[in-house]
Amino acid sequence: MHAFTFYNPTRIEFGENKEANIGDYMSEFRVKKALIVYGSNRIKDDGLFDIVVQSLHDNDIDFVECGGIKSNPVLSKVREGINIAKSAKVDCVLSVGGGSCLDSAKAIAAGALADEDVWEFFVGKKVVDALPIFDIMTLAATGSEMNSGGVVTNDETLQKYSIGGKPLFPKVSIINPKLQTTVSREYLVYSASDVIAHSIEAYLTAKDRPNIVNRLVENNIKTVMETTEILLDNPDDLVARGDFAWAATLALNGLTHAGVQGLSFPNHMIEHAMSAVCDVPHGAGLSVVMPAWMMWYQKNNLPQFERFAHKIFGKKNATDGIIALKAWFDKIGTPTTLAQLNIDDETLDAVIDNALDNAKAWQMDDIYDRQALEEIFSLAKL
Amino acid sequence: MHAFTFYNPTRIEFGENKEANIGDYMSEFRVKKALIVYGSNRIKDDGLFDIVVQSLHDNDIDFVECGGIKSNPVLSKVREGINIAKSAKVDCVLSVGGGSCLDSAKAIAAGALADEDVWEFFVGKKVVDALPIFDIMTLAATGSEMNSGGVVTNDETLQKYSIGGKPLFPKVSIINPKLQTTVSREYLVYSASDVIAHSIEAYLTAKDRPNIVNRLVENNIKTVMETTEILLDNPDDLVARGDFAWAATLALNGLTHAGVQGLSFPNHMIEHAMSAVCDVPHGAGLSVVMPAWMMWYQKNNLPQFERFAHKIFGKKNATDGIIALKAWFDKIGTPTTLAQLNIDDETLDAVIDNALDNAKAWQMDDIYDRQALEEIFSLAKL
Repeated sequence: MHAFTFYNPTRIEFGENKEANIGDYMSEFRVKKALIVYGSNRIKDDGLFDIVVQSLHDNDIDFVECGGIKSNPVLSKVREGINIAKSAKVDCVLSVGGGSCLDSAKAIAAGALADEDVWEFFVGKKVVDALPIFDIMTLAATGSEMNSGGVVTNDETLQKYSIGGKPLFPKVSIINPKLQTTVSREYLVYSASDVIAHSIEAYLTAKDRPNIVNRLVENNIKTVMETTEILLDNPDDLVARGDFAWAATLALNGLTHAGVQGLSFPNHMIEHAMSAVCDVPHGAGLSVVMPAWMMWYQKNNLPQFERFAHKIFGKKNATDGIIALKAWFDKIGTPTTLAQLNIDDETLDAVIDNALDNAKAWQMDDIYDRQALEEIFSLAKL
Repeated sequence: MHAFTFYNPTRIEFGENKEANIGDYMSEFRVKKALIVYGSNRIKDDGLFDIVVQSLHDNDIDFVECGGIKSNPVLSKVREGINIAKSAKVDCVLSVGGGSCLDSAKAIAAGALADEDVWEFFVGKKVVDALPIFDIMTLAATGSEMNSGGVVTNDETLQKYSIGGKPLFPKVSIINPKLQTTVSREYLVYSASDVIAHSIEAYLTAKDRPNIVNRLVENNIKTVMETTEILLDNPDDLVARGDFAWAATLALNGLTHAGVQGLSFPNHMIEHAMSAVCDVPHGAGLSVVMPAWMMWYQKNNLPQFERFAHKIFGKKNATDGIIALKAWFDKIGTPTTLAQLNIDDETLDAVIDNALDNAKAWQMDDIYDRQALEEIFSLAKL
């Protein structure tokens, strides 16, 4: 194993009805006034918001709201949240939603304690302080509930960039599989694609990988594939829903990168350009990019691609493993071609321009130049 | 998955030469005076102590010492450490050694801030405060470097009991595989046995286990078996040494218990009696107990025993899996019979009496009565 630091102080509260204790958990951190960040009004219609508010009330925690966070969350909304947080003088942020909500909440938590504009943290400034962050996850995909990162799109410049830093680890994250049974069929398969992407990025790019870490990753991929199929048949299967959610968390909490060097996130780098320019769902973009990128990249790390083919699909040949993954994406119904995302050639030019900026920002432009991106996107048309 | 809380704030610093930074890591916690807890003088002879002292010096951290911790660490020594800690007014504890050192350091850290005798924490009192704990691991086995527990034997009453509580999570644990290359052949195989025991306790006792957690456990077991064999051939193989160490950590940091209910630690409960009465090495005791306990217990959780046989040894039958494990213990050279530990029938009576007390203390006396223990120990004669 290569040298590493592993640190992850987030407390996970997993299980049914845990959201009813959110105020108790938060009061352990002596907070008094929260900004509740959420997406649509669905959480108000289905009773979740009332449960949260009751628990806050029982613990003498006041709150203000910032609703309307959308998938592929945007900077303008984050700034709105920061303004509310500052003017209401909240002392913590509570996200009730999926990864987009939580990523927005993280940016708000950092921005609320900063004098400078929050975008500074996305373009290089270090996050050294943030309001305490809590969350109730209504969708499992991003792993944001147990890491210190977040992704937001600057809706003026169309840059989909990341924020990160120790203060952005949530204090307490609640995962109640039952709250996730209402996730749509579409977002279930997009989420599966996202978790698989989180799993394969380091798995397929890094060399000299410890066997123990390879197996951790394969466990996450297998769990997601098995449970997605169960959940497509029966969305209310709480065992599968729980296993899926925990695999999503474990895929990006640092464990699958510990002891691994030379990893990179090319699929995310490329997909961020697609969702920044075209606002496609992140997981849908990823399931288009992944098989294409894998075909293009496999020669650079062939033994690991062969391992993937063998361990996940029982195939001997690297290419057969990629074909099998694409077939599985097709089977569950997440897109695998640019056409399915309605990205035409003209739009694709804008996507490639955007991806080239990402490649530079992520310091991957030595590999991912225009020609490389054109080759990868050509494969994504098949 | 069943409901669970997962929380583990320990920071792991893994890699070569990290021990030379120990003072830097500690100074992040604003400590000024450490109690260094260690075992034999070997760390002074081989230069490790000097490296540590230099790093403390560079960070203006003063220190006092408590050496002479032995395997199966004892309460009298812990009390000695507490007296030193109190009279020297240290503000943290640094363990330089294996699990016995660290477990002693944890007890000292709790006792140093308590008015009552430290044994109170072993017989039910909650640890609510402790000095910050740091460690440099020279042996991988107990997993103590990333959990909040510790085990010490009361050398007056021969009770081998546990201490636990959130303040006992180490702040920073250093794992440098190179420091572990000098572990003797005997302690390597005892350590392998200990990690396998940590892995199988919950794996074989709990029912309705999530597949994702089963695979985590199997990964740890496979990693330990593979790397032990490599290290017996070549103790200096740093890749295997590192993977072994990380598997030891992951086996008992909470991950393999998350989402699992109804687990218990019968092998440890029984072995603690053996090492309390006979002072046998913990791992050596465990490799004797495990196959015997497994034969005795398998009918209670047969599908999981069959899974173990299949996943670890490619066997179909539960009993064949147990036989294969025992054969593997024999192959690597860790004991599998009471005779190999020189435990005769008279001594065994005292061990059983001691184990009955443990069973009561661990609330397992409904299953583990005298007859059960006699049956298990009979199997440990074979």
